[in-house]
Amino acid sequence: MTIPDIASATNARIKALVRLRNRRERDEARRFVIEGYRELTRALAGGITIETLFVCPELYLGPNDAALVVRASEGGAEIVTVAEAPFRKASYRDRPEGLLGVAEQFDTSLARLDLSGNPLVLVAEGIEKPGNLGTMLRTAEAAGASGVLVVDPTTDPFNPNVVRASLGTLFTVPLAVGSTPDAIATLRAAGVAIVATTPSATLPHHGADLSRPCAIAVGSEQYGLSKEWIEAADDRVVIPMPGSVDSLNAAMAAGIVLFEAVRQRAISGAPGDSDR
Amino acid sequence: MTIPDIASATNARIKALVRLRNRRERDEARRFVIEGYRELTRALAGGITIETLFVCPELYLGPNDAALVVRASEGGAEIVTVAEAPFRKASYRDRPEGLLGVAEQFDTSLARLDLSGNPLVLVAEGIEKPGNLGTMLRTAEAAGASGVLVVDPTTDPFNPNVVRASLGTLFTVPLAVGSTPDAIATLRAAGVAIVATTPSATLPHHGADLSRPCAIAVGSEQYGLSKEWIEAADDRVVIPMPGSVDSLNAAMAAGIVLFEAVRQRAISGAPGDSDR
Repeated sequence: MTIPDIASATNARIKALVRLRNRRERDEARRFVIEGYRELTRALAGGITIETLFVCPELYLGPNDAALVVRASEGGAEIVTVAEAPFRKASYRDRPEGLLGVAEQFDTSLARLDLSGNPLVLVAEGIEKPGNLGTMLRTAEAAGASGVLVVDPTTDPFNPNVVRASLGTLFTVPLAVGSTPDAIATLRAAGVAIVATTPSATLPHHGADLSRPCAIAVGSEQYGLSKEWIEAADDRVVIPMPGSVDSLNAAMAAGIVLFEAVRQRAISGAPGDSDR
Repeated sequence: MTIPDIASATNARIKALVRLRNRRERDEARRFVIEGYRELTRALAGGITIETLFVCPELYLGPNDAALVVRASEGGAEIVTVAEAPFRKASYRDRPEGLLGVAEQFDTSLARLDLSGNPLVLVAEGIEKPGNLGTMLRTAEAAGASGVLVVDPTTDPFNPNVVRASLGTLFTVPLAVGSTPDAIATLRAAGVAIVATTPSATLPHHGADLSRPCAIAVGSEQYGLSKEWIEAADDRVVIPMPGSVDSLNAAMAAGIVLFEAVRQRAISGAPGDSDR
């Protein structure tokens, strides 16, 4: 057995990793943590450079872990072996997988969104819970969305819970963060229709044309979409609910409308198919 | 200021409450914990008798809390006032709302499901995460589903995280727990079509007739639906995903298919409406 590079939980690099759980520390360092096999695999696939990869081989779950370490190393990562106790201290998880990377925060400016072709964008306003944002990213990826536009967030997209709940799709679905006026201007300039979801609408979401270039805007569970988005919208839609109205979380509402867009696009793209 | 009934965190009743976090203790006591204003309100609306309501008025969030305590008391609950420190110990939450009820576990047998009329049932097989089951209940409630049938669960529906993630819809959507053979037999006897969601299907979920009496079956994220359900199904459907296939969680998949059923039922119920 080889001696790990880091054997003590009081090691300065372990302490620095723990500090990255704090948003201010992340913002100052312009760094964030990517933990887990699937997350790191998607980060490498998404072109993220892992600067440092802390590894604890005793915690590996399978034979693929070592291969991932080789790929990260070939991509320029410094590989640091860590004993189990300090690794568990640095890990954000109950059951760490022995893989914890640090990367530079990437550009999330609005210019990053590719709105060519027939874009399908998810706009998420005022999302508070990192888990909800992660689920939205994951669902937008499944729907083949062009990107997720996070406006006026109260959560940091580099929060470890976003990375985790997104299963690493944070790195494969283009994510942009901006203010409401800038986001609306960007969508309008690209000819993307804004479809605002709001309980006050009368048009059902499946009654709107979601096969055209469009951005589906959802608000927070607590406050809904802001007036600015509702007024700027080309269509205002509601998800008809035969049950009680507070029973859909924001990520679920986003998924239902995104997959209605996928349905409409499949049908309009294949004229031979009949609807249902 | 009045002296609370329980002032010490080592009080035997506080210890008993903490023990109810453990499934074996819950099963033995046939009791479970309902915490929070919204959850307790839905429990009372769902006809649950709160046996004991532990309250900590210092933690109340608003003026409605005291009224809820009166309703619970009128329904037969013993009201026990608790000082803040022991209440925080008993609470399952980071930010307790000062309301924590204990109720008897209710009947979850298959006979409980009402499959008359044009039922829409969600079948959830092998769900591991209490939060996922809670989200499914919440979404099924929004969709106006007739019930949620939990088969071969590895999670306990009386887990505090199910109560919480369901926002109390555990008490308003009929929930039944059973084995796969019993569940299939129950659905068949009632003439309810089984629609199995599986990545191996070729029929898109929106290509199946979900306006008829049907049960939408979803499996766990890790293993998918079992062979028994796939073979017993009248229709096997897939949610077409332009993106990557592992990106929908089980609750999201359930919500997307349930709301496609809501869409189809709205259209078939209102012949004047055109589709889209």
